[in-house]
Order: sequence, then structure tokens, then C-alpha cells
Amino acid sequence: MNDVIELLQSHRSIRKFSDKDIDQETINAIVASGQAAATSSNVQATTVIQVNSASDRDQLAAFAGGQKYVSTAGAFLVFCADLKRSAQACDSQGGEFTQGMTEHFIIATVDVALFAQNCAIAAESLGLGICYIGGLRNKPAEVSELLKLPENVYPVFGFCIGYPEQDPEIKPRLPLSSVLMQDVYTENVLQPGIDAYDEHIRAYYRSRTGGKKDSCWSEEMRALVGKESRPHMREFLNSKGFTML
Amino acid sequence: MNDVIELLQSHRSIRKFSDKDIDQETINAIVASGQAAATSSNVQATTVIQVNSASDRDQLAAFAGGQKYVSTAGAFLVFCADLKRSAQACDSQGGEFTQGMTEHFIIATVDVALFAQNCAIAAESLGLGICYIGGLRNKPAEVSELLKLPENVYPVFGFCIGYPEQDPEIKPRLPLSSVLMQDVYTENVLQPGIDAYDEHIRAYYRSRTGGKKDSCWSEEMRALVGKESRPHMREFLNSKGFTML
Repeated sequence: MNDVIELLQSHRSIRKFSDKDIDQETINAIVASGQAAATSSNVQATTVIQVNSASDRDQLAAFAGGQKYVSTAGAFLVFCADLKRSAQACDSQGGEFTQGMTEHFIIATVDVALFAQNCAIAAESLGLGICYIGGLRNKPAEVSELLKLPENVYPVFGFCIGYPEQDPEIKPRLPLSSVLMQDVYTENVLQPGIDAYDEHIRAYYRSRTGGKKDSCWSEEMRALVGKESRPHMREFLNSKGFTML
Repeated sequence: MNDVIELLQSHRSIRKFSDKDIDQETINAIVASGQAAATSSNVQATTVIQVNSASDRDQLAAFAGGQKYVSTAGAFLVFCADLKRSAQACDSQGGEFTQGMTEHFIIATVDVALFAQNCAIAAESLGLGICYIGGLRNKPAEVSELLKLPENVYPVFGFCIGYPEQDPEIKPRLPLSSVLMQDVYTENVLQPGIDAYDEHIRAYYRSRTGGKKDSCWSEEMRALVGKESRPHMREFLNSKGFTML
């Protein structure tokens, strides 16, 4: 359709980066692009921690389950949902911050993701590659301690940026007909879409790995949502003031 | 820096749209661009409901607190966090969906926002304007009933798309130095950033309204986070299976 849509549709995560540094001006432009994203009621609930310390990066890589590219990427950012800033602003006006609302948690989490996706697009438009690191939520308390995150702030995900040293294929997605529905949720499109996609992605994995990886999306989903996932998150969030009232 | 970054940084919400229709091919390209965004462990937890029915759009506009552009935009999409599809895939493989994990709620909500922000950029690259409608969360149960959303699916926000019939200014944001921190969270940058921004945004509101609107960000934050916000959200989410375990 146009160059931007082509850029959006050519995304793939990059996990191998060259040694080439990213200058601070570029990081600033990327983060400023994030700031330009929509934000709920102008709350601007995103704070980005740019982690430069090599030893901190190594620790974060370990917290994320041994994802080395957290250390080796040209830059590493931690995207935090931050209600501390708006709480402080509220209190400075004689208000009293109402802590722990589920709705505020949603607002802040969505804000962070909109912001980060703009950063992803900005980076990719400059020829950089990116990779989201949800694995920081393996050890959110440890991440928070390392980065000195205060109450009312939580690390949503990390984000590697760097000059790519690999050129992976674009991963196929579910058929559009499975994810775009008309007027009402249409349950009977689910299974045909899943079946078609299972076949598609199995062929993709096989061809990419010379037949070694032979699994489908439904199997991946059994592994992902068929068990408890990061069961510490609730308590961790509570400890940071996100008590889901 | 480049055209894409310029596009990202020129975002503003559009709330007045021309009558010009958007053809379905364009909507499909926009939603396919959303699909291309990163997704946690390939869960692809986004379902988009394109609402065409005029009476449904009017109802959604009312649910959102009387936001007429929900009715008048060229197209209206509801972005849903959808764990039903992955649950069904899991169960089809002999697994058992583990309902209610806070972590899965975060994954799904972030997935939706990344997807939607790609849609926003795709639309804007085509000369369309967009506006997120968080106001659907005023009446999430009613929205869910209207759109027949099943268990394990919740409406995160709506999304107007259309050809702009207004040209609003870009709203200034907090200073970059407030939202981008180095290595650790730096509490002492908060207040200077808030103070500078309060002054900046007050001047912006005054000049835009001929002096009529005279408020600052801190006052807005007192109104936003200084009280309960959509206190029904927790119970609504619980009722849909998002029980925050």
C-alpha cells in the first residue's frame, strides 16, 4: 500500500546485533516518537529506563532467563508503567492519589505499550532491529530493585535495540479472517482459522529448521496458557501499589 | 530524522471526520499491519470487531459517554483482548486452559495495544485520522453484550478511523528528560519536569482557547487519579474470567 505499511508488515524480532553503537540522539528521537503516541487522558504513564551499565545489563539478561541479547544489543530500555508522576502531580494540587484501581492499571499498561510500539516503528524506520523482553517479568521484584523503581511504578517489559546481524523471516500470523470480525464476535470462525494457521506455521517451522522443529500454534498455546504463568505477578504488583481494586 | 519519525511525531487525535467512506481493503490493510506487531510468545491475543451497524455505533457512542464521533467516523473498531482463541487451541491439544492469571491478562492487554498502535500508524500513513475510545470501559458489560463477547475476551478500547475534517495542533508532552532516565529511576527529575510541563501546557491551552481553558497537567492529574476510576472494572473482568490470580 505504501512504504510505512510495508515497514510495519516487515517486522521481525532481532536477537543478534552488531557491535555498532547507537548514538544518544537516535535514542532520544526514538523515545520522543514514543511520547507522541496517544495517551489516555494525557496521563503519560510511561517512564523509560535506558540501562547502560554492562553489569546491570548482564543481570537483567539473567533475570530474563538468560537472554544474552539483553547484554549485547546496542541499547537496552526498560519500559515502566508509572503512576508515581501523576500521583505526585495530583497530590501537589491538594488531591489524594487513589491507589490500586484496576482501571488505572489498565490505563498505564496500555499507555506503555502504545509508547513502546511507536519506539519500535521509529527504530525500524532507521534500519535498527528490536526485540521486546517480556522475560523481565520473570523477576519483577529483582528488576525493580536493580533499577530502583519506586512504588506505583512497575517494569512492563524490556526492549533491545541495535543494528541487526541476522535477517530472519517474517513469522506468519493467524488468518485475517480469524482476528477481524464484523459487528459481533463470531465463534465459528475460530477453529477453521486455528486449523489453517496450525498447518501454515508447522510448515514454516519445518522449512526454517530443516524439519527439526515440528510443532503448531495449538501446541504452543497448550504450553503457554495450559499452565500457571508467572504466578508471582499478582503479589509483586500488590507490593508496588497495584492492588487491582 | 526521516518521514516515518515525522509521521509518528505528528500524531493528534481526530474527532471530526468527513463522510467519505473507507473501503474494506483499506481496513484490512490497517488490521493486517496490526497483526504484524510483536506478540508475546506468539499468543496473538487480539480480536478486532469492526462495527458497521449504525444503531450499534450509536449505542457504543452512548456507552462511551456521548462521544458522537464513534457514530460518525468512517469506521469504528473495538479492540478486544482475546484469550478464548488460545484457550480453545490449548484444550484441543489435551491441555487445560489456566484461567485468570494476572500475567495472561498483562500479556493480552499489551498485545492488543501493540497491535492497535500499528493500526494507528498504518491509518495515519494513509492520511486517515484516528481516536482511541477508552470510554467503552464506562460500560464494558453492555459493550460485551452488544458485541456478543464470550468469556476470556474483554473490550480494551474502541478506535475511530476516518478522513479528518479538522486539523488540531499537536499536544505538547512532558519533557523528554522526565520520561527517559539513565540506569535507575531518578525521582528528583520528576518535579522540575512537571513544573516545566505545567507551564507549557497551560500556555498551550490558553492560546488554543483564547484564554478560556486555563489549567495545567497537575490539575488534570488531580481530576484523573485523585478519585476512583471505573470501579466496576475489577468485577467486570472477574465476570469474564480475568480474575487476576
